[in-house]
Amino acid sequence: MKTNELKLLYEGKAKKIYEKSSDEVIIYFKDDVTAFNGIKKDSIIGKGKINKLITSFFFKMIEEKGIPTHFISDVDDNSFVAKKVKIIPLEVIIRNYTAGSFCKRYGIEKGIKIQKPIVEYSLKDDDLGDPMICKNVILSLKQVEEKILNRLEYYSLKINNILSSFLEEKNIILVDYKLEFGIYDNKVYLADEISPDTCRFWDKDTMESLDKDVYREDKGNLIDKYSEFLRRINI
Amino acid sequence: MKTNELKLLYEGKAKKIYEKSSDEVIIYFKDDVTAFNGIKKDSIIGKGKINKLITSFFFKMIEEKGIPTHFISDVDDNSFVAKKVKIIPLEVIIRNYTAGSFCKRYGIEKGIKIQKPIVEYSLKDDDLGDPMICKNVILSLKQVEEKILNRLEYYSLKINNILSSFLEEKNIILVDYKLEFGIYDNKVYLADEISPDTCRFWDKDTMESLDKDVYREDKGNLIDKYSEFLRRINI
Ligand SMILES: Nc1ncnc2c1ncn2[C@@H]1O[C@H](COP(=O)(O)OP(=O)(O)O)[C@@H](O)[C@H]1O
Ligand SMILES: Nc1ncnc2c1ncn2[C@@H]1O[C@H](COP(=O)(O)OP(=O)(O)O)[C@@H](O)[C@H]1O
Ligand SMILES: [Mg+2]
Ligand SMILES: [Mg+2]
Repeated sequence: MKTNELKLLYEGKAKKIYEKSSDEVIIYFKDDVTAFNGIKKDSIIGKGKINKLITSFFFKMIEEKGIPTHFISDVDDNSFVAKKVKIIPLEVIIRNYTAGSFCKRYGIEKGIKIQKPIVEYSLKDDDLGDPMICKNVILSLKQVEEKILNRLEYYSLKINNILSSFLEEKNIILVDYKLEFGIYDNKVYLADEISPDTCRFWDKDTMESLDKDVYREDKGNLIDKYSEFLRRINI
Repeated sequence: MKTNELKLLYEGKAKKIYEKSSDEVIIYFKDDVTAFNGIKKDSIIGKGKINKLITSFFFKMIEEKGIPTHFISDVDDNSFVAKKVKIIPLEVIIRNYTAGSFCKRYGIEKGIKIQKPIVEYSLKDDDLGDPMICKNVILSLKQVEEKILNRLEYYSLKINNILSSFLEEKNIILVDYKLEFGIYDNKVYLADEISPDTCRFWDKDTMESLDKDVYREDKGNLIDKYSEFLRRINI
């Protein structure tokens, strides 16, 4: 892809968004990795390619199950074409097991199975540190209409079933993850990425991380673990 | 009251709880005032007496309107008899106008009227810094049964109507406040206190604080403002 011919719409911490046409973008996965709201920062050769592979694999799977996604078609190792959506400024977090900030916040042990998956929201705002926000406050602040919020929750739980049962067969636990959604033509689409950068994946036998916690907590070589995840899901 | 004859059950930041009988306590309002989770700390002569006066005044008013409260009878300047309840480990925060942590968290201007009052919850846990918690997480962590949680919310909004309209007549805005509830014999009771320590009260004309913000933000003499609040509500 000759990105120099395209207009760069946005460069984030992990991806670049180029304008392909008035209603399509090219999403390029960088090798950059960051943690703790950008305080820890590195470039790890090969990461972008792996995350792009995993994201397009999962997005195709989710689309096939009837949930609209922004994914349109692969371009090359690091990029795919996507619908240009208006991102809803919420991070939707789905938790199947206790981990991360959830444990810290409520003083709870890590690794406890949550009976009914928990859906949490945070305001997508780096300057405010992506603050947690409850549904009644989202509606009160008119961040999102109630109909759309309910749709996000419905899709998120459906996606959770799809991914959890797929990974279960690979002996991997889908612990928790973050989704982003966007609007195009008044319709809700799953957007952004689903990768070891945005999910916690644990080996079911060893409880070993196959995700960005390896980087956050200096638990080994990121590319090794991300590649093992790729191998385990057979792509 | 001869407190030395009674068993001290608990000493908190602002009150002492003595055991009167197996199902009654005496709540003694101290002159101590703290802010920022105990980092700022003082003793201000007369504060306990004012807060006890205001709390018993509001609790009688709320009880008369049909909401069960722990208040039983006055004892002396600083104390009253209350039902000994099992405190539900949640702080219920009701917001009518934006202020305080809410503004900071979401990057919102102070003093905006909220159309439909917002009810927020935080886990009553000083060590964790009373973390915010959404209703679905309260239920998931089995902190409280759904029936009880709905009751808390119903009572809180009813109390909000009672207090807001009473204060409106006194030209005072009830900005936001914190309530605690307890269980006795499977029934929910409003417990703890309602005072300038636990509410934000603003003069409607000048937007001047008549509450603990005076102390938090060094905006003047606490006793002067608390006394003015007393005068304004005619007790
Ligand atoms: N289909 C899409 N259309 C428009 N923007 C998108 C789309 N998918 C994702 N985005 C946005 O592009 C950015 C992706 O870059 P990323 O590096 O993840 O950013 P950030 O550092 O903000 O997380 C995010 O802001 C994301 O919301
Ligand atoms: N009726 C009651 N029965 C038992 N405990 C109560 C009752 N009312 C209030 N409490 C509890 O007593 C304590 C009041 O003391 P306070 O100084 O406000 O404590 P804290 O520093 O924990 O806020 C609180 O923990 C409160 O939950
Ligand atoms: Mg991102
Ligand atoms: Mg207290």
